[in-house]
Amino acid sequence: MRVSSGVPGFDEIVQGGLLKDRLYVVSGPPGSGKTTFSSQFITQGAKAGENCLYVTMHETKEELMQDMSGYDFGFDQVMASGKIQFLNLMTDSGKRTITQFGTEGGLTNRIVAFLEQQDIDRAVIDSTMLLQHFFNDVSDEITGFLSALKQTGTTVVLISEMTDPSSYADEHYLAHGVIFFHNYLESGGMTRGVQVIKMRGTAIDCDIRAIDFSDRGLRVMPDTKVEA
Amino acid sequence: MRVSSGVPGFDEIVQGGLLKDRLYVVSGPPGSGKTTFSSQFITQGAKAGENCLYVTMHETKEELMQDMSGYDFGFDQVMASGKIQFLNLMTDSGKRTITQFGTEGGLTNRIVAFLEQQDIDRAVIDSTMLLQHFFNDVSDEITGFLSALKQTGTTVVLISEMTDPSSYADEHYLAHGVIFFHNYLESGGMTRGVQVIKMRGTAIDCDIRAIDFSDRGLRVMPDTKVEA
Amino acid sequence: MRVSSGVPGFDEIVQGGLLKDRLYVVSGPPGSGKTTFSSQFITQGAKAGENCLYVTMHETKEELMQDMSGYDFGFDQVMASGKIQFLNLMTDSGKRTITQFGTEGGLTNRIVAFLEQQDIDRAVIDSTMLLQHFFNDVSDEITGFLSALKQTGTTVVLISEMTDPSSYADEHYLAHGVIFFHNYLESGGMTRGVQVIKMRGTAIDCDIRAIDFSDRGLRVMPDTKVEA
Amino acid sequence: MRVSSGVPGFDEIVQGGLLKDRLYVVSGPPGSGKTTFSSQFITQGAKAGENCLYVTMHETKEELMQDMSGYDFGFDQVMASGKIQFLNLMTDSGKRTITQFGTEGGLTNRIVAFLEQQDIDRAVIDSTMLLQHFFNDVSDEITGFLSALKQTGTTVVLISEMTDPSSYADEHYLAHGVIFFHNYLESGGMTRGVQVIKMRGTAIDCDIRAIDFSDRGLRVMPDTKVEA
Amino acid sequence: MRVSSGVPGFDEIVQGGLLKDRLYVVSGPPGSGKTTFSSQFITQGAKAGENCLYVTMHETKEELMQDMSGYDFGFDQVMASGKIQFLNLMTDSGKRTITQFGTEGGLTNRIVAFLEQQDIDRAVIDSTMLLQHFFNDVSDEITGFLSALKQTGTTVVLISEMTDPSSYADEHYLAHGVIFFHNYLESGGMTRGVQVIKMRGTAIDCDIRAIDFSDRGLRVMPDTKVEA
Amino acid sequence: MRVSSGVPGFDEIVQGGLLKDRLYVVSGPPGSGKTTFSSQFITQGAKAGENCLYVTMHETKEELMQDMSGYDFGFDQVMASGKIQFLNLMTDSGKRTITQFGTEGGLTNRIVAFLEQQDIDRAVIDSTMLLQHFFNDVSDEITGFLSALKQTGTTVVLISEMTDPSSYADEHYLAHGVIFFHNYLESGGMTRGVQVIKMRGTAIDCDIRAIDFSDRGLRVMPDTKVEA
Repeated sequence: MRVSSGVPGFDEIVQGGLLKDRLYVVSGPPGSGKTTFSSQFITQGAKAGENCLYVTMHETKEELMQDMSGYDFGFDQVMASGKIQFLNLMTDSGKRTITQFGTEGGLTNRIVAFLEQQDIDRAVIDSTMLLQHFFNDVSDEITGFLSALKQTGTTVVLISEMTDPSSYADEHYLAHGVIFFHNYLESGGMTRGVQVIKMRGTAIDCDIRAIDFSDRGLRVMPDTKVEA
Repeated sequence: MRVSSGVPGFDEIVQGGLLKDRLYVVSGPPGSGKTTFSSQFITQGAKAGENCLYVTMHETKEELMQDMSGYDFGFDQVMASGKIQFLNLMTDSGKRTITQFGTEGGLTNRIVAFLEQQDIDRAVIDSTMLLQHFFNDVSDEITGFLSALKQTGTTVVLISEMTDPSSYADEHYLAHGVIFFHNYLESGGMTRGVQVIKMRGTAIDCDIRAIDFSDRGLRVMPDTKVEA
Repeated sequence: MRVSSGVPGFDEIVQGGLLKDRLYVVSGPPGSGKTTFSSQFITQGAKAGENCLYVTMHETKEELMQDMSGYDFGFDQVMASGKIQFLNLMTDSGKRTITQFGTEGGLTNRIVAFLEQQDIDRAVIDSTMLLQHFFNDVSDEITGFLSALKQTGTTVVLISEMTDPSSYADEHYLAHGVIFFHNYLESGGMTRGVQVIKMRGTAIDCDIRAIDFSDRGLRVMPDTKVEA
Repeated sequence: MRVSSGVPGFDEIVQGGLLKDRLYVVSGPPGSGKTTFSSQFITQGAKAGENCLYVTMHETKEELMQDMSGYDFGFDQVMASGKIQFLNLMTDSGKRTITQFGTEGGLTNRIVAFLEQQDIDRAVIDSTMLLQHFFNDVSDEITGFLSALKQTGTTVVLISEMTDPSSYADEHYLAHGVIFFHNYLESGGMTRGVQVIKMRGTAIDCDIRAIDFSDRGLRVMPDTKVEA
Repeated sequence: MRVSSGVPGFDEIVQGGLLKDRLYVVSGPPGSGKTTFSSQFITQGAKAGENCLYVTMHETKEELMQDMSGYDFGFDQVMASGKIQFLNLMTDSGKRTITQFGTEGGLTNRIVAFLEQQDIDRAVIDSTMLLQHFFNDVSDEITGFLSALKQTGTTVVLISEMTDPSSYADEHYLAHGVIFFHNYLESGGMTRGVQVIKMRGTAIDCDIRAIDFSDRGLRVMPDTKVEA
Repeated sequence: MRVSSGVPGFDEIVQGGLLKDRLYVVSGPPGSGKTTFSSQFITQGAKAGENCLYVTMHETKEELMQDMSGYDFGFDQVMASGKIQFLNLMTDSGKRTITQFGTEGGLTNRIVAFLEQQDIDRAVIDSTMLLQHFFNDVSDEITGFLSALKQTGTTVVLISEMTDPSSYADEHYLAHGVIFFHNYLESGGMTRGVQVIKMRGTAIDCDIRAIDFSDRGLRVMPDTKVEA
């Protein structure tokens, strides 16, 4: 079963939408559109009546709402609707906390239990860079974390910083889908676009499509290919 | 003796098929076709009446079946036929386990014993990235693991993540065959294809052949060469 | 609410100015204009009656004033006006000190408390390279430091050395805005310019604009784009 | 005194053959021809009545014979003739053993003593990648190992994996000769060839010669140069 | 106040000379002209009646005088004049010593005290590569050392080895000025020249000027630009 | 005072010869000519009646003589003449020894004392790669070793392996002269040549000259420049 990403034009390049209950990794350099994509994704879920969770490790709800206030895709309304839980794992004084997810076990156990007990349909986790601060041995625990997430009944978007499009990390190999935003300085200017690198169970090509940021937020031009 | 890979067009570029009881490494970036190749390989074995084993470290049987459900090469049927054992070395909560292979010795000993006692003809191991979590000292134990696998009576496909086609790992040197899937973003678009880097006892060239993903799964065009 | 950067031409490329109370990272190689940008930014604040703070870790007030004495954007006057507090975290003998920020807790706690108790509106922190000397475990504490800064009521410019425009650090992912100065030796000469990589809540393009250093200080030519 | 390499065409590019009792390093990526070269080298020795030793750390005698069974340069016959001792330093269960070489001292002492007591004329050691598992401190012991090998009365071919032709390892500096097989994916296809980088006491050029794999095994075309 | 560098043509590209009491870093590959520049710089100081100090960590006074004996810019005379103190921090047997600078505290404290007590106007420190041998924790102490040097009443030239012009070190960010000598092997031959990367309080461009080594020593051609 | 290098054509590019009692580093990839250059250098010294020392860490006198036996520059005769002491710091069984240099202190102290007590005029040390095995803390002791060597009354050629001509090591910065042999595989074939990167007290250019290996040994073509 496929659900809409909430990003105009995106669903068209992935056979009509994202397969439910899967783990998607969204990567790209600073300013490439990862957070906007994720905000539209979670908004779409709330509009469709899904239980949503937005986990961030560096931002307040107010900040994110202000950041998205320039767009009118409805983020304000759904944030006010109670369909989205917003959890910031960083306290005001810069300390980390995961007590929001319960008090037993490590982050993997807690977040999986939370997703199941709260019956979360759609979640954003921002981001792998910060995630590492919650593990004792990242390379050891990250694969378990990703494998466990894949087995929950939640459609997850995991933001993963990644600066070099030719260098992949564990999450790119383990995720069901990998979506890459381009915003590289190359000879002749910036290349901006979105590329679906991988999408299990879905017929895709790997071409880069143009994107823009309009009043309605991020938009994909499925018929406009750009060169890398 | 050669056996079919189960991938249309592939056997033609390796003198009619893969030599039995050998270790093959399949490498490539995310989304390049490694899992589809492996699924067709194991399906072919089951169809031919071979005892098959699919070892994964990050995926459930249900997920893999769903991923392959868009293709009609017969994965569903053989998975239901009892000819394929599916072992997931990761528990629901993200813990690792190898008790499926027995309780004596390390992974190398257990998996070799399992292959022999169960008389496994064909196996997929997905993947070297995750394999490392089962060793205390990877660089020390991986060569022993690979050498032992080479000496079993099983035709093994080992998936090995590899992002840079000019940088080889131990498994590429030690395997009997190395099959590389291309899916790189290069100037002018994505290069997709398959390349047999090495195949002991087999006359090969090292050209890259075009591939596509049709309803029947992955297919190799033995007469269509693509530039790197 | 937007405030002026104090750099002629710069505000025009960020929808009229910088959003207040946000964290901006300014990066670029030696001699690219980071310090001049920051000095004009802080001068602008003081002229507008804001409480300002300039934190440096390697320079005296006298040095900075001498460095800026070739420009007439008014740095002397505002430094004399009492609207700018200048703190050097390095003593004459090369020892580090943070007692200026209070005596309780680590640098993150102290600087956040200081900003709030002093009601600082605008601050420059020069720089991340030196910042690391104040943390026990940089990779662990830097994200907390940045997250805490983002939640204060201060508009912060954080100077971050960065030599390779295709390699990003934590601060580039976590900041609300990233401003990059170019001064690279490339075939055919030096490329000089400014590029806004990211600016949350602001419609930007990522083109590089020409800059020059006139008697009035750093100036951006919003209509003159330069190639990377 | 020069001896034939056993590879048609190769002797012609090294003044008629390899100087006896010297250490030669054979390098190249997977599938480039290192093992086939070594097998022809050892076969040539046995045919000439020399005492030969083939040391491998990852392969059985049966595997190697099967790998070479597609060629008719006589490997089967000499392996059956008793002129070649085949030692596999890896047990069936993936453990390492060097007891074949005696029980006193480390690998260096044992192998040198073995070569001398058995009066070995020609030896293959496959390979440096695996060799490292036999040393406590590789960078410390490898130079001693190589220096000691150079002083024995045996003509040694040491296989050294090497993926980047512009990056050399200790063994390339210390060996009397360095032979490099090319099999790189470069724009426009694969480059296959052999190059003698260094050959003490021998007038060589460093051009790359074309090679092919015929029924008779590896063959060098001394008059066909290929571009790197 | 500006002082002459002592290098013909150089002053013209930095508004007539170097600002007094500042820290300048001179970088470049072996043989690019760093030592000759420094020798002319210190000679100029002595000729102008300044108290000068030349600190080296690998050379005797005799060696340096011999090295400069091919030039007639007056090094011999000023070395004999008593205006230049020459300190070698390496003993004949290759041991390090800093007792010349006093016996209290570390290198930073001692050298700062020495500069002040001896009222040194101009100093050369050769070099950062060797400097590291005098610190327990280089990355920790080097910034303190540089910051302290910046606050003395001495015009300092610090030689910093640097092989890659696109990779900067701490000293390049912290210095008041960075002067880079080019001597790279590039396609088509060697590129030789001098480039002022950064010069606080001074209007510069960053173009590379041609240099040559005449009987009078190093000379800059301010009107001859060379491509990188 | 200048002495001949013993290599035809080389002296012409360094103002007639090498300055006496200095430290020269000879670098280049395997097979580029470092050992041949050094052998001609030491032969020239012996012919001129100088006391010579050849220190190697991986080779016997017999091997070196055999390696040079294809040339007729007189190596045999001078090795037999007693003017050259040959010391191999590696025993037959691959152990290291420095007792040849005395029994007091570390390698630096011993070798310096040996050079002085034996009144050695000219020495070859082969090589820095192996030298590191004689130090407890290489980066700490190598600069002391080099500085001490520079202060002896011996003209020293130190062989330093170096694969990348744009990456320099400590010895290249500290030596009085740096001579680089080219033998790189570049597009279009091998580039062979010699380049004087640095030569204190000597007017040089940095162009690469063609070399060849004739019956008389290595020869430099001072008038034939080759492109990098």
